[in-house]
Amino acid sequence: MNGFDRFKELQKKQKAYQLVLGIASWDSNTEAPKACFPYRSEMLSLISGEYYALSTSEEYQEIVNALHQDPEDLSEIQKKEIRKAKKDIDKILPIPREDYVEYSRLVNLSQREWEEAKAKDDYDHFKPYLEKIIGFRKKMAHQRDPDAHPYNVFLDDFEEGMDMEKYDGFFRIVKEEIAPFAKEVLAVKDEKPPEFMVATYPRDKQKQFGEYLMDVLAFDKNRGLLKESVHPFTWNTHSKDVRFTVRYLENYLFSSVFAAIHELGHALYEQQVDEMFDMTNLKSGASMGMHESQSRFYENVVGRSLPFWEAHLPKLKKLFPRQLKGVDAEEFFRAANRVDETFIRVEADELTYPLHILIRYEIERMIFEGQIDVDDLPAIWNKKMKQYLNLDVEKPSQGILQDVHWSTGMFGYFPTYALGSAYAAQIYYTIKEELDFERLVREDDIAEINRFLKEKVHCYGKSKTPEEILVALTGEPFNPQYYARYLKEKYRDIYLK
Amino acid sequence: MNGFDRFKELQKKQKAYQLVLGIASWDSNTEAPKACFPYRSEMLSLISGEYYALSTSEEYQEIVNALHQDPEDLSEIQKKEIRKAKKDIDKILPIPREDYVEYSRLVNLSQREWEEAKAKDDYDHFKPYLEKIIGFRKKMAHQRDPDAHPYNVFLDDFEEGMDMEKYDGFFRIVKEEIAPFAKEVLAVKDEKPPEFMVATYPRDKQKQFGEYLMDVLAFDKNRGLLKESVHPFTWNTHSKDVRFTVRYLENYLFSSVFAAIHELGHALYEQQVDEMFDMTNLKSGASMGMHESQSRFYENVVGRSLPFWEAHLPKLKKLFPRQLKGVDAEEFFRAANRVDETFIRVEADELTYPLHILIRYEIERMIFEGQIDVDDLPAIWNKKMKQYLNLDVEKPSQGILQDVHWSTGMFGYFPTYALGSAYAAQIYYTIKEELDFERLVREDDIAEINRFLKEKVHCYGKSKTPEEILVALTGEPFNPQYYARYLKEKYRDIYLK
Repeated sequence: MNGFDRFKELQKKQKAYQLVLGIASWDSNTEAPKACFPYRSEMLSLISGEYYALSTSEEYQEIVNALHQDPEDLSEIQKKEIRKAKKDIDKILPIPREDYVEYSRLVNLSQREWEEAKAKDDYDHFKPYLEKIIGFRKKMAHQRDPDAHPYNVFLDDFEEGMDMEKYDGFFRIVKEEIAPFAKEVLAVKDEKPPEFMVATYPRDKQKQFGEYLMDVLAFDKNRGLLKESVHPFTWNTHSKDVRFTVRYLENYLFSSVFAAIHELGHALYEQQVDEMFDMTNLKSGASMGMHESQSRFYENVVGRSLPFWEAHLPKLKKLFPRQLKGVDAEEFFRAANRVDETFIRVEADELTYPLHILIRYEIERMIFEGQIDVDDLPAIWNKKMKQYLNLDVEKPSQGILQDVHWSTGMFGYFPTYALGSAYAAQIYYTIKEELDFERLVREDDIAEINRFLKEKVHCYGKSKTPEEILVALTGEPFNPQYYARYLKEKYRDIYLK
Repeated sequence: MNGFDRFKELQKKQKAYQLVLGIASWDSNTEAPKACFPYRSEMLSLISGEYYALSTSEEYQEIVNALHQDPEDLSEIQKKEIRKAKKDIDKILPIPREDYVEYSRLVNLSQREWEEAKAKDDYDHFKPYLEKIIGFRKKMAHQRDPDAHPYNVFLDDFEEGMDMEKYDGFFRIVKEEIAPFAKEVLAVKDEKPPEFMVATYPRDKQKQFGEYLMDVLAFDKNRGLLKESVHPFTWNTHSKDVRFTVRYLENYLFSSVFAAIHELGHALYEQQVDEMFDMTNLKSGASMGMHESQSRFYENVVGRSLPFWEAHLPKLKKLFPRQLKGVDAEEFFRAANRVDETFIRVEADELTYPLHILIRYEIERMIFEGQIDVDDLPAIWNKKMKQYLNLDVEKPSQGILQDVHWSTGMFGYFPTYALGSAYAAQIYYTIKEELDFERLVREDDIAEINRFLKEKVHCYGKSKTPEEILVALTGEPFNPQYYARYLKEKYRDIYLK
């Protein structure tokens, strides 16, 4: 057996471990009963240990290193697989197995504790877990690269090539251009949401509309499903098993509708990655930022557009004739783009959204600069909410406990949300030129938009970098000015005309 | 580290593999999308291969053998753990790893193909898979014990100590006592089901009643859940994660109601196994037959009793006032015990049920005696249906394709269903003496019955054999005459008075 074949064999086994750990995590996040987690966390950490052993075995290292140093006989794709494998080894190898296993156990458990803390609105319940996780993350960053700033290590994990310097530049635009503009719009916001926005919408009918949206966005139901969970997310193991979740709030229809379209953006991306990558480490979206660009694009550019509701409000009215009586597409569109100061990131409007991310970015930066005590985190959070959104946080569930990410150790993830929105804006200006975008949306031909994005973005999986994709698609590297421009054009039109 | 500690460590890892494979199987059987199975089957077979390697490693064998030969320092429970481990090694070791992995891949895949064949009513679609599975099972039986009758190998797997000779004796009573009595009852059966039995019952309300039944039977919802699937089943990984499924047929309420009570019987058993066994190989019910005795007991003895419906018909009527208008507990009880010739085992009444099992037992016996060609199986099935139930099977979905078991290789499992019903009858005669059974059911105090069964049956897990449990509880070894007596008393009372 030649080196590359043996590499593929070992990698297949890695993927088998990823699959079973992935299914377990899907189960944990959607339905596993509360009492099972102590046992489960311990058992899963053992499986993670086996995965670690496989991914750091001498044989695997030798093969990858040999192919990395001597790649002549490999195809371009194979070279990329090896580069990725090499990078993954470099990430995992410096972490001792005991730490890896213990960390896996910790985050499996902490997520449940976070959930409980949030439900009880009790930061102190979560604090010891958060403290341990932060300690672990700092230690791991140091193990991996003692010279790097620890936060940079994680920023790069979630978006290759990004670091604090680049993000600082990006968030400067959020702070200096988007924040003041948002202030202008907030000054003239609709003080009250329209009646229909706060009416009661029974869950079952919301569910039916979710199923309808899957068809509208041409999601392949043979290769995935929609389920309910507390925190909406998308999950996949390969292009033929892509799932997403939403939650149904009976007194807030928009929550499930726009979460569904958002997650469908992620899910379409995964379903459209070329199946040739299923058995490789290049499967899945190019990066977190690129992924988020697609979810944001579908949610905000497609889903919160007037033509979208010209096409689909009739269906929604059939399901909710009483609640939506007399509402027209214009009104619905305006409500779907209602700007307001809100506590909860996932319910925030498109315009104030990056401010929520800015807050998290600044706090995470402080955490990893070691300037912060976990005891002080809620106060810091609340202060920043006051500063950027002029809101007084009254309980941790509407402040620091609202997001799942930290309980799973995902520091450095949040910034990709804003970055993705910015990618989406840049991509949008190209799409407007290349496709008859509004007509396609109005005439319910989103499959045509899917095809375009498949060809330009999705099909490549991780075989191209975000930068390569952006340059090929839009003709220039990432340029955050498109983001400011897009938001200003859209919201000026709605609120400042 | 001493031998037993090292044994526990290796066993914990085995349990971790069982956990992830178990979660994957739960997912496969309840919601995984259709297109994911080729990839998934291949990947799970690799994990099965890792499990195999662990369970047959030289180190593990040596430790188990040493402790098995020299058990003085072990506690009674530890001795049982080692005996079980030794037996498990003896079962798995003769199967070569390639066969084990390939077989795992095959059954993961075949289950989907069976589902499709059943949906399309196309036996030929399933035939090649069935043929391969039978071939594999015969080969494996030979590998494990070339001198034994292959069917005996599997009968013993599902019910330790049982073989064809013993089952022949048991089924003789089914044939010679129960079948003729069933004929008598069928001669005077209610020709038509009452109106309310075939009315329409919306799914959502059925679901609500399912949740209600969980409370009635004192199922701990923190340690499990109820979900929907095509084929009702119970699943668990340890006493703190016990799940079961039902399906909802809008035109047949009894299907979900009695499936729920049946599966709750299995589930209560698992929840009541002492948690000290969670981390051992003695967790879970004593045997398939003992398990089925509990599900049958709750379903038929508790759930299909008059006092049960005196207590719970009011709740059902609240959910379905229109459908159940004017129906009283007597009528409901009679309908719940309606005897009829039916095609589908899982919908069969208690009295004709063992005839369905008899058919399967006889066919499986023939398969492993090598007298049968898979081409002929449907005809043989249909002939036996005519012989024992006087029915003409018109399509494979109401005949040979109705059950999932063979698609997963579980030959030898069916007989435990009838055996369990017989255990249940024997246990019932003791319970009637020891508890004020009817009053407890009528006064909605099933928790008291649970406590009794926990103490006498459930808590032991596999640390006692079915025989030990039966003798301690009922004062005598298994005696199938109780089964005939129970059925005759109950159905004489309803139909032949």
